[in-house]
Amino acid sequence: MSAIWLDCDPGHDDAMAIILAAYSANLLGISTSAGNQTIHKTTRNAIRVLSAIGKSYIPVVKGQAAPLIRPSMVCAEIHGESGLDGLNDKPLFDEVDISHIQGPAPPVMYEQIRRYFYLTGQKVRLVGTGCLTNIALLLVLYPDVKSMIDISIMGGAIGIGNISPSAEFNILLDPEAAKIVFESGVDLVMIPLEVTHTALVTNEVLQKIGNSTPFTAKICELLNYFRKNYKEVFDFADPPLHDPLAIAYVLRPDLFTGRSMRVDIETQSDYSYGRTICDVWNKSTMKKNCWVATKVELDGFWDLMIQAVELADSRSSLN
Amino acid sequence: MSAIWLDCDPGHDDAMAIILAAYSANLLGISTSAGNQTIHKTTRNAIRVLSAIGKSYIPVVKGQAAPLIRPSMVCAEIHGESGLDGLNDKPLFDEVDISHIQGPAPPVMYEQIRRYFYLTGQKVRLVGTGCLTNIALLLVLYPDVKSMIDISIMGGAIGIGNISPSAEFNILLDPEAAKIVFESGVDLVMIPLEVTHTALVTNEVLQKIGNSTPFTAKICELLNYFRKNYKEVFDFADPPLHDPLAIAYVLRPDLFTGRSMRVDIETQSDYSYGRTICDVWNKSTMKKNCWVATKVELDGFWDLMIQAVELADSRSSLN
Amino acid sequence: MSAIWLDCDPGHDDAMAIILAAYSANLLGISTSAGNQTIHKTTRNAIRVLSAIGKSYIPVVKGQAAPLIRPSMVCAEIHGESGLDGLNDKPLFDEVDISHIQGPAPPVMYEQIRRYFYLTGQKVRLVGTGCLTNIALLLVLYPDVKSMIDISIMGGAIGIGNISPSAEFNILLDPEAAKIVFESGVDLVMIPLEVTHTALVTNEVLQKIGNSTPFTAKICELLNYFRKNYKEVFDFADPPLHDPLAIAYVLRPDLFTGRSMRVDIETQSDYSYGRTICDVWNKSTMKKNCWVATKVELDGFWDLMIQAVELADSRSSLN
Amino acid sequence: MSAIWLDCDPGHDDAMAIILAAYSANLLGISTSAGNQTIHKTTRNAIRVLSAIGKSYIPVVKGQAAPLIRPSMVCAEIHGESGLDGLNDKPLFDEVDISHIQGPAPPVMYEQIRRYFYLTGQKVRLVGTGCLTNIALLLVLYPDVKSMIDISIMGGAIGIGNISPSAEFNILLDPEAAKIVFESGVDLVMIPLEVTHTALVTNEVLQKIGNSTPFTAKICELLNYFRKNYKEVFDFADPPLHDPLAIAYVLRPDLFTGRSMRVDIETQSDYSYGRTICDVWNKSTMKKNCWVATKVELDGFWDLMIQAVELADSRSSLN
Repeated sequence: MSAIWLDCDPGHDDAMAIILAAYSANLLGISTSAGNQTIHKTTRNAIRVLSAIGKSYIPVVKGQAAPLIRPSMVCAEIHGESGLDGLNDKPLFDEVDISHIQGPAPPVMYEQIRRYFYLTGQKVRLVGTGCLTNIALLLVLYPDVKSMIDISIMGGAIGIGNISPSAEFNILLDPEAAKIVFESGVDLVMIPLEVTHTALVTNEVLQKIGNSTPFTAKICELLNYFRKNYKEVFDFADPPLHDPLAIAYVLRPDLFTGRSMRVDIETQSDYSYGRTICDVWNKSTMKKNCWVATKVELDGFWDLMIQAVELADSRSSLN
Repeated sequence: MSAIWLDCDPGHDDAMAIILAAYSANLLGISTSAGNQTIHKTTRNAIRVLSAIGKSYIPVVKGQAAPLIRPSMVCAEIHGESGLDGLNDKPLFDEVDISHIQGPAPPVMYEQIRRYFYLTGQKVRLVGTGCLTNIALLLVLYPDVKSMIDISIMGGAIGIGNISPSAEFNILLDPEAAKIVFESGVDLVMIPLEVTHTALVTNEVLQKIGNSTPFTAKICELLNYFRKNYKEVFDFADPPLHDPLAIAYVLRPDLFTGRSMRVDIETQSDYSYGRTICDVWNKSTMKKNCWVATKVELDGFWDLMIQAVELADSRSSLN
Repeated sequence: MSAIWLDCDPGHDDAMAIILAAYSANLLGISTSAGNQTIHKTTRNAIRVLSAIGKSYIPVVKGQAAPLIRPSMVCAEIHGESGLDGLNDKPLFDEVDISHIQGPAPPVMYEQIRRYFYLTGQKVRLVGTGCLTNIALLLVLYPDVKSMIDISIMGGAIGIGNISPSAEFNILLDPEAAKIVFESGVDLVMIPLEVTHTALVTNEVLQKIGNSTPFTAKICELLNYFRKNYKEVFDFADPPLHDPLAIAYVLRPDLFTGRSMRVDIETQSDYSYGRTICDVWNKSTMKKNCWVATKVELDGFWDLMIQAVELADSRSSLN
Repeated sequence: MSAIWLDCDPGHDDAMAIILAAYSANLLGISTSAGNQTIHKTTRNAIRVLSAIGKSYIPVVKGQAAPLIRPSMVCAEIHGESGLDGLNDKPLFDEVDISHIQGPAPPVMYEQIRRYFYLTGQKVRLVGTGCLTNIALLLVLYPDVKSMIDISIMGGAIGIGNISPSAEFNILLDPEAAKIVFESGVDLVMIPLEVTHTALVTNEVLQKIGNSTPFTAKICELLNYFRKNYKEVFDFADPPLHDPLAIAYVLRPDLFTGRSMRVDIETQSDYSYGRTICDVWNKSTMKKNCWVATKVELDGFWDLMIQAVELADSRSSLN
């Protein structure tokens, strides 16, 4: 069973990624980042979700409140004021006290990853579903961690971004951090928008999840809020469930099609800032540094996701 | 009947654009640019093609040998050493003397456009199928020409480029010129790779052209050479006939689907140099400045193209 | 006697450059550019000055109204609303009709330079004291002119700029044009701020000019207005008479100390936009492309300048 | 007595900065960075110097081996292979074992600074004489440290750099780190090349130091090696003793003239990369963020420096 460290900014789809990681893998811990909402809110949401799914013993560490260099931004138009709003624009899960949750995250991540690696001899699968600030700092401060991990991220785009014509949201949040990660030499898998935009939460998916328990009802409300905003902002009929795909890759790489290529991160220009420049025509003279997914087998993915929701439902503190 | 001025760098697909313009519109003249090959070769090719199709009276003016700022490049891997090679890597058409063809092009273009505009009260449809150096200089030197033209170009990409992960060839040839054109305020239509990559010279197309005359045999050889190189360089089964689409838009705009948006040209970064940043999500606060085609009705396009080839065949000096 | 073509944007110090060129050299003609004021105003000022000094037969051609790519700006805070204001914020010289003065300038510049070069076998000394838009277009449109000219410009800085921390005004007006000129391969001399900031119009200079005639009184008023604004904007006790130094170099290169080096023009960054990057430590691997003045022998310069004013005074239509 | 934390990359002038800090202030500790040589060598040099001056109890922590984003470089042409070479191109001080010295530095710096701040209520004076990587990471990981420190650095230039036409060496080593520091909001003093290039190690200075003891003989050899290289690389008659000036500012700010201004760090362009853009003309609309020294009273500075050498001499383990 894969050992995962999840760096995320919950966030509706991050919440689903937590469920998938917690019930389908050995989730060693979670570090949070600012992005879908502020660091305070995403940290609170991580703990709320773990609590709701009966996994409050999984450690959470509060990550960076801001990108390395550029100013912060949040994405309230998709995730609401709490970062995990439901249909009445209210936070979906119970209030929690997070005053004891501290940072910085990288020393804790290093400690946990190193311990696991020396105990088992196995690499930790580091999964990033938010900006890459924490992961970049981990790599910068502790270069020896590179031999103890591989990295799978939801982020970037081969063609068109979502937050700008050039950039996908997670990468644009902190392009300099992304550059550090992409140039680190660590085995890296990127699940871009071209793939995540195929994993749509259709009515069929919602029916499979059902809403027969308090927990699954909350999940459906979560996903319906997400649907409503994706419709308004991007005019998508069904919303794409981005983040769990980066977990799914760790669990079932056979579900994904893709290939290795050079990917560079644009940090030099306002217009193209945050673009993941994917060398699809093999024009670059630089070393291939990323395996870029181009397709996912959707039935397999939804089976994984729904199975995890069912397991979470069986243990949920909400039922 | 539309009056067209064609700025091109023949080039195999430019040759087909010349045929389409010369036999389906009032082609006022041709200015050449470096790109598919050097300015000497593209100018010679323009005259060779006009001669082969019985239109040698159409004026040709030799344009800029180099981009405004960046160094020149050519595309011999697709168009061969002559810029119009056939299957034995030989130039397809007869040698011509071009010593009398001079530049610079912009004063001549201005003169011709202005005369037409004042005689008819109609705008000239300026079509660009190469780099935009000549057109940019025309706009810079003669700002009053802006009210006498609209512009239709083959160039750019919404998503992935062809000459780099970021840029389409015609734009990358001279991004600063492209920036001048895109920010000029002139009515502008862009036929990007997303559209041209659907207009493939399939075997069915070749059969429709036939090769029963010396002229159509040459055309088929031209297209088969193009096919061979597209297969080698880009692994395309059938080659895309980019350039005639910018003429086709002038003739039959109803064949095209698309929409107005802000398009910016990236000139500030090595990685993204030459990218046409198409604001598909309406995020830009800047004025919409380009109508970007997203689809073409292919049967209609091939009807136009093949009809023009048939007319050219009936007048060709090669038969 | 050197044959000079002067490209300028008068402007107070440009006016003095016109006087110096017209009375100490063979001034073939003047092309104007926007900068110190709009193209309309600088063109009018060029003709006003020529008229006031009895040289209205020298041809003037109206140059570019705007830079190649970036937006226009003017410098009313130094040169006033007319571009040649006097102490009551009024234009100093008589109104003139410039409706017959047309552009574009580069074809005219080429014609005149070429004629002189073929008649005499001597290069024309092209002097730029404004932005480099016209000169860049001349080089782009007529590459063969490169063997017929050398270029001397007032512009740039080795260290600190004047219009921004990075850039000198003339270069910042059109950095892309400057890049074209600096990379053209033409023999190029640059008189930077480090030199022009030593050529101060002190009271001693004003006394040498005197104000005993209507003409010299106007000149003193011109220079006193310039002084007032330099005091307010830059807190200079005496104003620097930038532009005539580029003419003085042509007349008396022996007055100048300097050396050849690589100079690059920054066009890629907002913060450093328009900087002339002078490779003072010989770190660049690129070819030396500019002789950069570092010092001028001031007594010699003022002798030249005042002698020209005296000659102009003897012919002035104002006396 | 000021409490200083010194971040440095010894380096000849860094060695003198250590002497000055250790004998004129309360030197809490030293963090090292790569720059004048690799992190291994600069760390070894820091310990060698402390040992030679009888201060081996001062804690040393090994800092970052590389910049945040750009590749590493070292400066062997000035500081030799060891980073502290003497006239026979040999390391000047005894070998030491540094295998026990570990990083990363920022958590240790935070711990030490925080402890001092809470014990005394006084800010720690953080002095940087190398690249700013460690300091940037300290600020990024522990934002609350901002209220516990001010920062004084040797680095940057108002006009011309030393390692490129645009940039001073310490800033160019890690411009992104510099950007983080300059935009952090912490009280910041910058001692630029314009000041350090006046603090020359003349023969008079060397005579004041004397070489009557083994220790002072070593110091003179150190400075003569530095002199030799500065002569060869930059053609300076006497070498500038950059780094101790940043310590001297902490000890005696009254010796320095300067003023507050906006300073931005150029990270967007190859040509100007690493430039400290000092807004000398008050053109920026952004907040002033740095006090930039423009002059130092030299006699006062050398008195401080020589006094510290004398104290070090009296305790040196080499005597």
